[in-house]
Amino acid sequence: MEEKQHKQHNEHHFTSSDTVKDIVIGMSDGLTVPFALAAGLAGVVDGTTLVVTAGIAEIAAGSIAMGLGGYLAARSEAEHYTNERFREQQETRYRLADEEQEIIDIFSSYEISPTDSRPIVEALKKNPEIMVDFMMKFELGLEKPEPKRAVTSAGTIAGSYIVGGIIPLLPYMILTNGHSALLWSVTVTIIALFVFGYLKGSFLGTKPWYSALQTTFIGGIAAGVAYFMAKILS
Amino acid sequence: MEEKQHKQHNEHHFTSSDTVKDIVIGMSDGLTVPFALAAGLAGVVDGTTLVVTAGIAEIAAGSIAMGLGGYLAARSEAEHYTNERFREQQETRYRLADEEQEIIDIFSSYEISPTDSRPIVEALKKNPEIMVDFMMKFELGLEKPEPKRAVTSAGTIAGSYIVGGIIPLLPYMILTNGHSALLWSVTVTIIALFVFGYLKGSFLGTKPWYSALQTTFIGGIAAGVAYFMAKILS
Repeated sequence: MEEKQHKQHNEHHFTSSDTVKDIVIGMSDGLTVPFALAAGLAGVVDGTTLVVTAGIAEIAAGSIAMGLGGYLAARSEAEHYTNERFREQQETRYRLADEEQEIIDIFSSYEISPTDSRPIVEALKKNPEIMVDFMMKFELGLEKPEPKRAVTSAGTIAGSYIVGGIIPLLPYMILTNGHSALLWSVTVTIIALFVFGYLKGSFLGTKPWYSALQTTFIGGIAAGVAYFMAKILS
Repeated sequence: MEEKQHKQHNEHHFTSSDTVKDIVIGMSDGLTVPFALAAGLAGVVDGTTLVVTAGIAEIAAGSIAMGLGGYLAARSEAEHYTNERFREQQETRYRLADEEQEIIDIFSSYEISPTDSRPIVEALKKNPEIMVDFMMKFELGLEKPEPKRAVTSAGTIAGSYIVGGIIPLLPYMILTNGHSALLWSVTVTIIALFVFGYLKGSFLGTKPWYSALQTTFIGGIAAGVAYFMAKILS
């Protein structure tokens, strides 16, 4: 019972951390790229209409590219797992002696003698499906993907990109003067990047203040370079 | 010797596949997002200057966000490994009985009895560092990251984003008529997305034609949505 609870706890931990990672992937880029693009354009065009148009077009393109990208990555991960599992099942059935040797080799790399690992091999041979599970994890290092992961991952990444991307555009939507909108966008986005970085650090177990500074730094560099590239070109 | 060669082969395989993954990450978004943004803007502004300016600003922002993002992700992965390794070392030193029980529990989840896993525990106890290696892999599923991975990963992702992003912008740089540039950009980028998708499929072991169609589809959807969003807003 204790063992089962321990497992459930681990699985729960793994799932929520995957969602947090997807939010971080989407929002890191969402807060940074539309912000930097808008800052770049605000430096070279009059008014705010074109900045908003370009910003929204970027958010549409970026969220689709990242969301569909996330979907396909998660789906091909699931396909890869299925294919490799099938291969291990075939090997366990038709080349059992090779599989036994592979298990002995895995343990040998931890300086465990064939005599000491032999009981493990014999125990696994009693149940071929469990032997396959064992090889998936310890030979190939693959975890069984969650079935709904591809869709939720895509939605989470795309949604986070849109939420992150709207924040730096809000001042351009509200104000008509391009220069004031730029100043407000920089102020609002630096605060948002700082808060996001702090929360990201807290959730993923790195130092929150350090993460806050890093996230703000990336956004600042991206916006600064985009601003100067646009200035040079126009 | 055979065993050593086998290991070296595996490590080589792992490294090149990581680089391919980084190129795929950078180029998927690089070919898609600047392409879609440029198509969206080309539908609502006259000439090509502003399309090129926005496209270059986007490439600058996107490559910095993804490159620095990749750098920080790889670095925090390395930090996470170091922290967890230290924790396992402390546990092996001060709570050895708990570690022994954890090893027995890992094997129990594969229906291997404590009697059968006991020789493994005893062999690992003879060398605490190898016991730590074993727990990193078998309990936590963590691989030792390569030291230079963070920098090369950042450079590869950013470089691939820039290369991918320049392709759809070339027609806007060469031609002055916005409409012809848009048509050329769509043609050139669809070919590029198709070829890239095909190569991606071949390298990552999925069906090449299927991958080619998927990549082209994502780019097409992103550009279409960006085009109509820009039309609606202006």
